Amino acid sequence: MGRQTRLGAVMESAAELFSARGFAATSVRAVAARAEISTAGLYYHIATKEDLLFRTCQGAIGEILGGARQAVSGAADPVAQLRGVMENHFSSFQRQPHKLVLLNREVHHLSPAPRQAIAVLERQYLELVRGVIRRGQKAGLFKPLDASLVAFSLLAVLNGLEGWYDPAGRVSRHRLLAQMAEITLSGILKQTKPEQADG
Amino acid sequence: MGRQTRLGAVMESAAELFSARGFAATSVRAVAARAEISTAGLYYHIATKEDLLFRTCQGAIGEILGGARQAVSGAADPVAQLRGVMENHFSSFQRQPHKLVLLNREVHHLSPAPRQAIAVLERQYLELVRGVIRRGQKAGLFKPLDASLVAFSLLAVLNGLEGWYDPAGRVSRHRLLAQMAEITLSGILKQTKPEQADG
Repeated sequence: MGRQTRLGAVMESAAELFSARGFAATSVRAVAARAEISTAGLYYHIATKEDLLFRTCQGAIGEILGGARQAVSGAADPVAQLRGVMENHFSSFQRQPHKLVLLNREVHHLSPAPRQAIAVLERQYLELVRGVIRRGQKAGLFKPLDASLVAFSLLAVLNGLEGWYDPAGRVSRHRLLAQMAEITLSGILKQTKPEQADG
Repeated sequence: MGRQTRLGAVMESAAELFSARGFAATSVRAVAARAEISTAGLYYHIATKEDLLFRTCQGAIGEILGGARQAVSGAADPVAQLRGVMENHFSSFQRQPHKLVLLNREVHHLSPAPRQAIAVLERQYLELVRGVIRRGQKAGLFKPLDASLVAFSLLAVLNGLEGWYDPAGRVSRHRLLAQMAEITLSGILKQTKPEQADG
Protein backbone atom coordinates (compact mmCIF):
# COMPACT_ATOMS: atom_id res chain seq x y z
CA MET A 1 0.00 0.00 0.00
CA GLY A 2 1.20 3.53 -0.74
CA ARG A 3 1.10 6.24 1.92
CA GLN A 4 -2.17 7.68 0.70
CA THR A 5 -3.82 4.27 0.50
CA ARG A 6 -2.65 3.46 4.02
CA LEU A 7 -3.89 6.78 5.34
CA GLY A 8 -7.24 6.08 3.65
CA ALA A 9 -7.44 2.69 5.37
CA VAL A 10 -6.65 4.29 8.73
CA MET A 11 -9.34 6.95 8.29
CA GLU A 12 -11.90 4.36 7.21
CA SER A 13 -11.08 2.11 10.18
CA ALA A 14 -11.27 5.04 12.57
CA ALA A 15 -14.66 6.08 11.16
CA GLU A 16 -16.02 2.54 11.49
CA LEU A 17 -14.83 2.07 15.08
CA PHE A 18 -15.67 5.59 16.32
CA SER A 19 -19.19 5.31 14.86
CA ALA A 20 -19.79 1.80 16.17
CA ARG A 21 -18.27 2.15 19.68
CA GLY A 22 -17.94 5.88 20.16
CA PHE A 23 -14.78 7.99 20.12
CA ALA A 24 -14.09 7.70 23.85
CA ALA A 25 -14.28 3.90 23.87
CA THR A 26 -12.01 3.40 20.85
CA SER A 27 -8.22 3.13 21.23
CA VAL A 28 -5.63 4.10 18.63
CA ARG A 29 -4.36 0.53 18.95
CA ALA A 30 -7.76 -0.82 17.86
CA VAL A 31 -7.83 1.52 14.85
CA ALA A 32 -4.33 0.38 13.85
CA ALA A 33 -5.31 -3.28 14.20
CA ARG A 34 -8.38 -2.81 12.01
CA ALA A 35 -6.37 -0.94 9.39
CA GLU A 36 -3.80 -3.77 9.56
CA ILE A 37 -0.83 -1.55 10.34
CA SER A 38 1.33 -1.18 13.44
CA THR A 39 0.50 1.47 16.04
CA ALA A 40 3.88 3.09 15.25
CA GLY A 41 2.94 3.06 11.57
CA LEU A 42 -0.36 4.78 12.40
CA TYR A 43 1.42 7.52 14.32
CA TYR A 44 3.41 8.21 11.16
CA HIS A 45 0.16 9.46 9.66
CA ILE A 46 -1.59 11.07 12.61
CA ALA A 47 -0.52 12.88 15.76
CA THR A 48 -3.35 11.97 18.18
CA LYS A 49 -6.64 10.10 18.33
CA GLU A 50 -8.40 13.46 18.20
CA ASP A 51 -6.53 14.24 14.99
CA LEU A 52 -8.06 11.09 13.49
CA LEU A 53 -11.55 12.23 14.44
CA PHE A 54 -10.87 15.71 13.12
CA ARG A 55 -9.55 14.54 9.75
CA THR A 56 -12.39 12.08 9.32
CA CYS A 57 -15.03 14.72 10.06
CA GLN A 58 -13.22 17.29 7.92
CA GLY A 59 -13.11 14.87 5.00
CA ALA A 60 -16.80 14.04 5.36
CA ILE A 61 -18.14 17.59 5.53
CA GLY A 62 -15.60 18.74 2.92
CA GLU A 63 -16.84 16.14 0.47
CA ILE A 64 -20.50 17.00 1.06
CA LEU A 65 -19.79 20.71 0.73
CA GLY A 66 -17.75 20.32 -2.47
CA GLY A 67 -20.42 18.18 -4.08
CA ALA A 68 -23.19 20.57 -3.00
CA ARG A 69 -21.33 23.53 -4.55
CA GLN A 70 -21.03 21.65 -7.82
CA ALA A 71 -24.70 20.69 -7.68
CA VAL A 72 -25.75 24.30 -7.11
CA SER A 73 -23.54 25.78 -9.82
CA GLY A 74 -24.61 23.08 -12.26
CA ALA A 75 -28.37 23.49 -11.87
CA ALA A 76 -30.57 26.00 -13.63
CA ASP A 77 -33.00 27.11 -10.92
CA PRO A 78 -33.41 26.95 -7.13
CA VAL A 79 -35.71 23.92 -7.26
CA ALA A 80 -33.19 21.94 -9.32
CA GLN A 81 -30.42 23.21 -7.04
CA LEU A 82 -32.19 21.95 -3.92
CA ARG A 83 -32.75 18.60 -5.59
CA GLY A 84 -29.05 18.51 -6.46
CA VAL A 85 -28.08 19.29 -2.86
CA MET A 86 -30.31 16.46 -1.63
CA GLU A 87 -28.98 13.99 -4.16
CA ASN A 88 -25.37 14.92 -3.31
CA HIS A 89 -25.96 14.58 0.44
CA PHE A 90 -27.57 11.21 -0.10
CA SER A 91 -24.67 10.03 -2.28
CA SER A 92 -22.16 11.09 0.36
CA PHE A 93 -24.13 9.10 2.90
CA GLN A 94 -24.05 6.05 0.64
CA ARG A 95 -20.30 6.36 0.04
CA GLN A 96 -19.28 7.07 3.62
CA PRO A 97 -22.06 6.19 6.08
CA HIS A 98 -19.73 5.90 9.10
CA LYS A 99 -18.30 9.37 8.55
CA LEU A 100 -21.77 10.92 8.56
CA VAL A 101 -22.46 9.18 11.87
CA LEU A 102 -19.33 10.85 13.25
CA LEU A 103 -20.47 14.26 12.05
CA ASN A 104 -23.81 13.71 13.75
CA ARG A 105 -22.66 12.20 17.01
CA GLU A 106 -18.93 12.21 17.75
CA VAL A 107 -17.78 15.61 16.48
CA HIS A 108 -18.61 17.00 19.94
CA HIS A 109 -15.58 15.18 21.32
CA LEU A 110 -13.23 17.57 19.51
CA SER A 111 -11.63 20.34 21.54
CA PRO A 112 -12.66 23.93 20.75
CA ALA A 113 -10.22 24.84 17.93
CA PRO A 114 -10.74 21.77 15.70
CA ARG A 115 -14.47 21.75 16.53
CA GLN A 116 -14.59 25.33 15.35
CA ALA A 117 -12.83 24.41 12.10
CA ILE A 118 -15.52 21.79 11.39
CA ALA A 119 -18.24 24.24 12.41
CA VAL A 120 -16.95 26.71 9.80
CA LEU A 121 -17.46 24.10 7.06
CA GLU A 122 -20.89 23.15 8.43
CA ARG A 123 -21.82 26.81 8.44
CA GLN A 124 -20.70 27.15 4.80
CA TYR A 125 -22.94 24.25 3.90
CA LEU A 126 -25.87 25.79 5.74
CA GLU A 127 -25.24 29.14 4.02
CA LEU A 128 -25.17 27.44 0.64
CA VAL A 129 -28.57 25.83 1.28
CA ARG A 130 -29.99 29.01 2.78
CA GLY A 131 -28.79 30.96 -0.26
CA VAL A 132 -30.64 28.62 -2.61
CA ILE A 133 -33.79 29.03 -0.53
CA ARG A 134 -33.52 32.83 -0.50
CA ARG A 135 -33.04 32.96 -4.26
CA GLY A 136 -36.04 30.66 -4.65
CA GLN A 137 -38.06 32.99 -2.45
CA LYS A 138 -36.98 36.06 -4.45
CA ALA A 139 -37.92 34.26 -7.65
CA GLY A 140 -41.38 33.64 -6.17
CA LEU A 141 -40.90 29.87 -6.26
CA PHE A 142 -40.79 29.24 -2.52
CA LYS A 143 -43.10 30.38 0.24
CA PRO A 144 -41.86 33.35 2.30
CA LEU A 145 -40.91 31.21 5.29
CA ASP A 146 -37.91 31.80 7.54
CA ALA A 147 -35.03 30.66 5.28
CA SER A 148 -32.94 29.43 8.23
CA LEU A 149 -35.74 27.25 9.51
CA VAL A 150 -36.29 25.79 6.04
CA ALA A 151 -32.55 25.12 5.65
CA PHE A 152 -32.23 23.52 9.09
CA SER A 153 -35.29 21.36 8.47
CA LEU A 154 -33.98 20.17 5.14
CA LEU A 155 -30.56 19.37 6.59
CA ALA A 156 -32.18 17.59 9.55
CA VAL A 157 -34.04 15.28 7.19
CA LEU A 158 -30.83 14.58 5.25
CA ASN A 159 -28.69 14.09 8.36
CA GLY A 160 -31.37 11.91 9.92
CA LEU A 161 -30.94 9.38 7.11
CA GLU A 162 -28.12 7.61 8.94
CA GLY A 163 -30.41 6.78 11.83
CA TRP A 164 -32.80 4.64 9.85
CA TYR A 165 -32.15 4.28 6.12
CA ASP A 166 -30.88 0.88 5.08
CA PRO A 167 -29.55 0.99 1.50
CA ALA A 168 -30.16 -2.77 1.30
CA GLY A 169 -33.76 -2.42 2.52
CA ARG A 170 -37.21 -2.09 1.00
CA VAL A 171 -36.98 1.50 -0.23
CA SER A 172 -34.70 1.95 -3.25
CA ARG A 173 -32.34 4.88 -3.65
CA HIS A 174 -34.41 6.22 -6.53
CA ARG A 175 -37.69 6.00 -4.64
CA LEU A 176 -36.21 7.47 -1.47
CA LEU A 177 -34.84 10.49 -3.31
CA ALA A 178 -38.06 11.06 -5.25
CA GLN A 179 -40.23 10.85 -2.13
CA MET A 180 -37.85 12.88 -0.01
CA ALA A 181 -37.91 15.61 -2.64
CA GLU A 182 -41.70 15.41 -2.67
CA ILE A 183 -41.89 15.67 1.13
CA THR A 184 -39.41 18.47 1.53
CA LEU A 185 -40.29 20.41 -1.60
CA SER A 186 -44.03 20.30 -1.60
CA GLY A 187 -45.10 18.78 1.70
CA ILE A 188 -47.39 15.93 2.56
CA LEU A 189 -50.84 17.45 2.23
CA LYS A 190 -52.62 16.58 -1.01
CA GLN A 191 -54.43 19.90 -1.04
CA THR A 192 -52.35 22.82 0.13
CA LYS A 193 -54.26 25.21 2.28
CA PRO A 194 -52.20 28.43 2.23
CA GLU A 195 -51.57 29.49 5.80
CA GLN A 196 -50.49 32.65 7.46
CA ALA A 197 -47.19 31.39 8.80
CA ASP A 198 -45.33 34.66 9.20
CA GLY A 199 -47.05 35.81 12.40
CA MET B 1 -35.07 17.97 49.83
CA GLY B 2 -37.25 14.86 49.71
CA ARG B 3 -36.07 11.69 48.01
CA GLN B 4 -37.96 12.43 44.79
CA THR B 5 -36.69 16.01 44.63
CA ARG B 6 -33.14 14.82 45.19
CA LEU B 7 -33.48 12.16 42.52
CA GLY B 8 -34.84 14.84 40.18
CA ALA B 9 -31.81 17.05 40.86
CA VAL B 10 -29.47 14.12 40.21
CA MET B 11 -31.17 13.29 36.91
CA GLU B 12 -31.10 16.93 35.82
CA SER B 13 -27.41 17.30 36.72
CA ALA B 14 -26.58 14.09 34.90
CA ALA B 15 -28.45 15.25 31.78
CA GLU B 16 -26.66 18.60 31.83
CA LEU B 17 -23.19 17.11 32.23
CA PHE B 18 -23.67 14.16 29.86
CA SER B 19 -25.01 16.47 27.16
CA ALA B 20 -22.31 19.12 27.63
CA ARG B 21 -19.27 16.84 28.05
CA GLY B 22 -20.44 13.46 26.81
CA PHE B 23 -21.28 10.37 28.87
CA ALA B 24 -17.78 8.88 28.74
CA ALA B 25 -16.08 12.05 29.98
CA THR B 26 -18.46 12.62 32.92
CA SER B 27 -17.83 11.05 36.32
CA VAL B 28 -20.45 10.09 38.89
CA ARG B 29 -18.55 12.32 41.30
CA ALA B 30 -19.08 15.33 39.00
CA VAL B 31 -22.81 14.58 38.78
CA ALA B 32 -23.05 14.34 42.58
CA ALA B 33 -21.15 17.63 42.98
CA ARG B 34 -23.47 19.42 40.56
CA ALA B 35 -26.54 18.01 42.26
CA GLU B 36 -25.05 19.10 45.59
CA ILE B 37 -25.19 15.71 47.25
CA SER B 38 -22.48 13.29 48.32
CA THR B 39 -21.34 10.52 45.99
CA ALA B 40 -22.60 8.03 48.58
CA GLY B 41 -25.93 9.84 48.60
CA LEU B 42 -26.10 9.59 44.82
CA TYR B 43 -25.52 5.83 44.95
CA TYR B 44 -28.56 5.59 47.20
CA HIS B 45 -30.61 6.56 44.14
CA ILE B 46 -28.76 4.90 41.29
CA ALA B 47 -26.66 1.78 40.83
CA THR B 48 -24.23 2.84 38.09
CA LYS B 49 -23.42 5.76 35.80
CA GLU B 50 -25.09 3.83 32.98
CA ASP B 51 -28.23 3.58 35.11
CA LEU B 52 -28.26 7.40 35.27
CA LEU B 53 -28.08 7.64 31.49
CA PHE B 54 -30.76 4.99 31.09
CA ARG B 55 -33.21 6.63 33.49
CA THR B 56 -32.64 10.05 31.96
CA CYS B 57 -33.27 8.77 28.42
CA GLN B 58 -36.24 6.70 29.59
CA GLY B 59 -37.78 9.72 31.28
CA ALA B 60 -37.27 11.88 28.18
CA ILE B 61 -38.73 9.51 25.61
CA GLY B 62 -41.46 8.44 28.05
CA GLU B 63 -42.58 12.03 28.48
CA ILE B 64 -42.60 12.71 24.74
CA LEU B 65 -44.50 9.51 24.05
CA GLY B 66 -47.08 10.12 26.76
CA GLY B 67 -47.71 13.64 25.54
CA ALA B 68 -47.94 12.51 21.92
CA ARG B 69 -50.54 9.88 22.83
CA GLN B 70 -52.63 12.51 24.56
CA ALA B 71 -52.25 14.85 21.58
CA VAL B 72 -53.39 12.16 19.15
CA SER B 73 -56.36 11.01 21.23
CA GLY B 74 -57.43 14.60 21.85
CA ALA B 75 -57.42 15.76 18.22
CA ALA B 76 -60.23 15.36 15.71
CA ASP B 77 -58.38 14.50 12.48
CA PRO B 78 -54.92 13.38 11.30
CA VAL B 79 -53.80 16.91 10.41
CA ALA B 80 -54.65 18.19 13.89
CA GLN B 81 -53.06 15.07 15.37
CA LEU B 82 -49.78 15.70 13.55
CA ARG B 83 -49.82 19.30 14.68
CA GLY B 84 -50.38 18.09 18.24
CA VAL B 85 -47.48 15.66 17.99
CA MET B 86 -45.22 18.47 16.77
CA GLU B 87 -46.34 20.85 19.48
CA ASN B 88 -45.82 18.20 22.16
CA HIS B 89 -42.32 17.32 20.91
CA PHE B 90 -41.41 20.97 20.85
CA SER B 91 -42.71 21.49 24.39
CA SER B 92 -40.69 18.52 25.65
CA PHE B 93 -37.63 20.05 24.04
CA GLN B 94 -38.32 23.35 25.79
CA ARG B 95 -38.84 21.68 29.16
CA GLN B 96 -35.88 19.30 28.98
CA PRO B 97 -33.41 20.32 26.27
CA HIS B 98 -30.48 18.40 27.77
CA LYS B 99 -32.43 15.16 27.86
CA LEU B 100 -33.26 15.40 24.17
CA VAL B 101 -29.55 15.87 23.44
CA LEU B 102 -28.90 12.62 25.32
CA LEU B 103 -31.53 10.79 23.27
CA ASN B 104 -29.91 12.06 20.08
CA ARG B 105 -26.28 11.58 20.94
CA GLU B 106 -25.47 9.64 24.10
CA VAL B 107 -28.02 6.84 24.15
CA HIS B 108 -25.57 4.76 22.09
CA HIS B 109 -23.39 4.40 25.19
CA LEU B 110 -25.97 2.11 26.80
CA SER B 111 -25.29 -1.61 26.73
CA PRO B 112 -27.62 -3.79 24.63
CA ALA B 113 -30.44 -4.54 27.13
CA PRO B 114 -31.13 -0.97 28.34
CA ARG B 115 -30.52 0.37 24.80
CA GLN B 116 -33.17 -2.06 23.61
CA ALA B 117 -35.61 -0.86 26.30
CA ILE B 118 -35.22 2.72 25.03
CA ALA B 119 -35.51 1.53 21.41
CA VAL B 120 -38.88 -0.05 22.26
CA LEU B 121 -40.20 3.33 23.41
CA GLU B 122 -38.70 5.10 20.38
CA ARG B 123 -40.37 2.51 18.15
CA GLN B 124 -43.73 3.13 19.86
CA TYR B 125 -43.37 6.83 19.15
CA LEU B 126 -42.52 6.15 15.53
CA GLU B 127 -45.51 3.79 15.23
CA LEU B 128 -47.80 6.43 16.70
CA VAL B 129 -46.66 8.99 14.11
CA ARG B 130 -46.77 6.46 11.29
CA GLY B 131 -50.30 5.47 12.33
CA VAL B 132 -51.47 9.08 12.11
CA ILE B 133 -49.93 9.37 8.64
CA ARG B 134 -51.55 6.14 7.44
CA ARG B 135 -54.96 7.25 8.70
CA GLY B 136 -54.43 10.59 6.95
CA GLN B 137 -53.60 8.76 3.75
CA LYS B 138 -56.69 6.54 4.05
CA ALA B 139 -58.81 9.63 4.61
CA GLY B 140 -57.36 11.10 1.39
CA LEU B 141 -55.76 13.99 3.28
CA PHE B 142 -52.12 13.04 2.75
CA LYS B 143 -50.25 12.08 -0.41
CA PRO B 144 -49.66 8.34 -0.88
CA LEU B 145 -45.98 8.54 0.10
CA ASP B 146 -44.11 5.88 2.05
CA ALA B 147 -45.50 6.37 5.58
CA SER B 148 -42.22 5.36 7.23
CA LEU B 149 -40.24 7.89 5.25
CA VAL B 150 -42.73 10.63 6.11
CA ALA B 151 -42.61 9.67 9.80
CA PHE B 152 -38.80 9.53 9.91
CA SER B 153 -38.54 12.86 8.11
CA LEU B 154 -40.95 14.52 10.51
CA LEU B 155 -39.14 13.12 13.54
CA ALA B 156 -35.77 14.17 12.07
CA VAL B 157 -36.97 17.76 11.83
CA LEU B 158 -38.24 17.64 15.42
CA ASN B 159 -35.13 15.93 16.80
CA GLY B 160 -32.90 18.29 14.86
CA LEU B 161 -34.29 21.22 16.87
CA GLU B 162 -31.75 20.74 19.65
CA GLY B 163 -28.90 21.34 17.21
CA TRP B 164 -29.84 24.87 16.33
CA TYR B 165 -32.98 26.30 17.91
CA ASP B 166 -32.36 28.89 20.58
CA PRO B 167 -35.57 29.57 22.56
CA ALA B 168 -34.13 32.99 23.47
CA GLY B 169 -33.35 33.80 19.83
CA ARG B 170 -34.98 35.61 16.96
CA VAL B 171 -37.67 33.06 16.10
CA SER B 172 -40.47 32.84 18.65
CA ARG B 173 -42.04 29.56 19.75
CA HIS B 174 -45.30 30.48 18.05
CA ARG B 175 -43.66 31.37 14.77
CA LEU B 176 -41.39 28.33 14.83
CA LEU B 177 -44.30 25.98 15.33
CA ALA B 178 -46.44 27.67 12.67
CA GLN B 179 -43.67 27.60 10.09
CA MET B 180 -42.54 24.10 10.95
CA ALA B 181 -46.10 22.91 10.47
CA GLU B 182 -46.21 24.74 7.16
CA ILE B 183 -42.93 23.18 6.02
CA THR B 184 -43.68 19.66 7.09
CA LEU B 185 -47.37 19.66 6.28
CA SER B 186 -47.50 21.43 2.99
CA GLY B 187 -43.93 21.94 1.87
CA ILE B 188 -42.01 24.92 0.73
CA LEU B 189 -43.15 25.34 -2.86
CA LYS B 190 -45.75 28.03 -3.36
CA GLN B 191 -47.40 26.14 -6.17
CA THR B 192 -47.55 22.39 -5.68
CA LYS B 193 -46.80 20.49 -8.82
CA PRO B 194 -48.17 16.98 -8.18
CA GLU B 195 -45.42 14.49 -8.90
CA GLN B 196 -45.27 10.79 -9.51
CA ALA B 197 -43.26 9.89 -6.46
CA ASP B 198 -44.19 6.22 -6.12
CA GLY B 199 -41.92 4.87 -8.84
